[in-house]
Amino acid sequence: MSGEEGHGHRRQSAAASDEATRRAAPGEAAGAADAATGITSLIPTDDEMAARLADARRRVAGIVHRTPVATSRTLDALTGARVLLKCENLQRTGAFKFRGAWNAISRLPPALRKRGVIAYSSGNHAQAVALTARLLGIPAVIVMPSAAPGPKLAATRGYGAEIVFYDTAGEEREALAARLAQERGLTLVPPFDHPDIVAGQGTAAAELFEEGGPMDLLLVPVGGGGLISGSALAADLMCGERCRVVGVEPAAGDDACQSLAAGRIVRIAPPQTIADGARTPALSPLTFEMIRRHVDAMTSVPDAALIEAMRFVWERMKLIVEPTGVLGLAALMSGRVEARGKRVGVVLSGGNVELEKVAGWFAGA
Amino acid sequence: MSGEEGHGHRRQSAAASDEATRRAAPGEAAGAADAATGITSLIPTDDEMAARLADARRRVAGIVHRTPVATSRTLDALTGARVLLKCENLQRTGAFKFRGAWNAISRLPPALRKRGVIAYSSGNHAQAVALTARLLGIPAVIVMPSAAPGPKLAATRGYGAEIVFYDTAGEEREALAARLAQERGLTLVPPFDHPDIVAGQGTAAAELFEEGGPMDLLLVPVGGGGLISGSALAADLMCGERCRVVGVEPAAGDDACQSLAAGRIVRIAPPQTIADGARTPALSPLTFEMIRRHVDAMTSVPDAALIEAMRFVWERMKLIVEPTGVLGLAALMSGRVEARGKRVGVVLSGGNVELEKVAGWFAGA
Repeated sequence: MSGEEGHGHRRQSAAASDEATRRAAPGEAAGAADAATGITSLIPTDDEMAARLADARRRVAGIVHRTPVATSRTLDALTGARVLLKCENLQRTGAFKFRGAWNAISRLPPALRKRGVIAYSSGNHAQAVALTARLLGIPAVIVMPSAAPGPKLAATRGYGAEIVFYDTAGEEREALAARLAQERGLTLVPPFDHPDIVAGQGTAAAELFEEGGPMDLLLVPVGGGGLISGSALAADLMCGERCRVVGVEPAAGDDACQSLAAGRIVRIAPPQTIADGARTPALSPLTFEMIRRHVDAMTSVPDAALIEAMRFVWERMKLIVEPTGVLGLAALMSGRVEARGKRVGVVLSGGNVELEKVAGWFAGA
Repeated sequence: MSGEEGHGHRRQSAAASDEATRRAAPGEAAGAADAATGITSLIPTDDEMAARLADARRRVAGIVHRTPVATSRTLDALTGARVLLKCENLQRTGAFKFRGAWNAISRLPPALRKRGVIAYSSGNHAQAVALTARLLGIPAVIVMPSAAPGPKLAATRGYGAEIVFYDTAGEEREALAARLAQERGLTLVPPFDHPDIVAGQGTAAAELFEEGGPMDLLLVPVGGGGLISGSALAADLMCGERCRVVGVEPAAGDDACQSLAAGRIVRIAPPQTIADGARTPALSPLTFEMIRRHVDAMTSVPDAALIEAMRFVWERMKLIVEPTGVLGLAALMSGRVEARGKRVGVVLSGGNVELEKVAGWFAGA
């Protein structure tokens, strides 16, 4: 258990958060209003989130890929556990983000929806929002840094989205996105800080439990906290007390570890790590609260452990997974979490990475 | 249909091959005797092969991975077809070869089996035989060129096999393997020229039809012809006349195309192609006959088309597939076969490739 930063029993945390829970507003209207303004301070109750997860599961069926669950006897032998890998790298757009984007946008009232959506992201959320908008036949604007990598730009444009660049020296991207949303009547789709995003992301773990049965341990990457929030909710609902849920961050960007330890949201400087999907400087009020309620522990791994885990899934399992995507696997393989004799679920969150970079990492490792 | 080298109707070919068919010996004993001597000139009837495929399906269940069937709406849009990719790159040992090796070796009578097996291969067949032997707790000897790549050597050793090197300038590897088999009482497991190998390889396509329903077109890589023989047999049995079966070779190693056109087995010089699993110089009597009976057409693709198809599955589908593995997909994507409006099955046969080479190919393409 060494290496994990526990924070007490989650049931107690949930009890302690009654204050926040009581502030929750009723589901759909609140969600839509939140999205329209980008303000998402209302935190639903556990029951409301359970209902949203159930609704999300119905919404994503037949739209998102029901991604395969991969196993490896070599990995089982290495870890002494039975490991089930949920392959969200094989999700549409190459990452779990499509689940949340589809769920949130498809729930918008028709009048809002047809005006279009806007998001700020240079990564997987951008492609997820762009594809969702194309499938729904509505406009999408993506705010990206002018230095965004060519392939991500091309993929997002390929889905038909309008790209608006921001200069990292100029206006903040959140502010720019909020201004454009206001001017054009677009709904801002936040990357993680929204109950419908969280519920959508939780559908991956729900599928894993449905297919693989209850787990003793679930390992999930943590960036802004949307995926772990939804995954831990699903674990509580489908596995109960049996399943220990552990979130994993890159060591250089362990703001969630720090936040859980401090009992408040800690904001850090933009972290230097190859796990570009986990370079977020802070959790949101919603994801912080969801993690306090449903996650048992947080831990972090150095980039070298990410490269080692990537090499394993690339070479032995023939799966292209990005650095952020192997956070959970790296925690398992490097022994940061104790898994011997357990049934372990691991979410491989995405596979969008430039091959040239990976070749360099492997050569240098 | 341009680009394909047809060879008449397969039913007629089957009729024309009655001579060969009548030479067939009864199943199990013949198979074992063949394997013991490495001589496999007896060609079973269609009914016998159908029974062997059914037996193989029972034998591989629970041992080989039931690999996922991947789809991509982008690929469907590009080709105008509904494309189902059978992911044998995700098979144990990283290639379909484990199916045939397991099937053939597990069928050996106990007395032969416990003495052990031998194979000559520097590629996927080596690992398949080595893993099978380890699972059955029997000795395995693999004859490899002294210049075999380090990772393949390590993987084969990792499965506990004894490696015997041969010098490409010295004794022929087939002769060396036959001599060792004789001296040590080992059973030679041929890479493709055996009914049990063919039947085992056919289980992949059988799973594809079972999961995805009947296809209009099936595209399969062709090296020595074991995979296409088994796949085409499964297609005939499970899809009937509806399914057109097309084998695909690298343009530089199109001996099967030439053989079908000539009506006899044509042997070529060792071909120069990145598709290292299809560098075989000739079909065997068994695979030539199986292809004549069950395959509708052969075609070939240049290495540049392989690189383009690899780039698609790596970048867009997050799957690591080796050059030989994308032969069928490359024929589809480059328009060598007409697929518009059809349900198309494609066997992605393996994923064992060195990352550094792929980075170079992509950079140069």
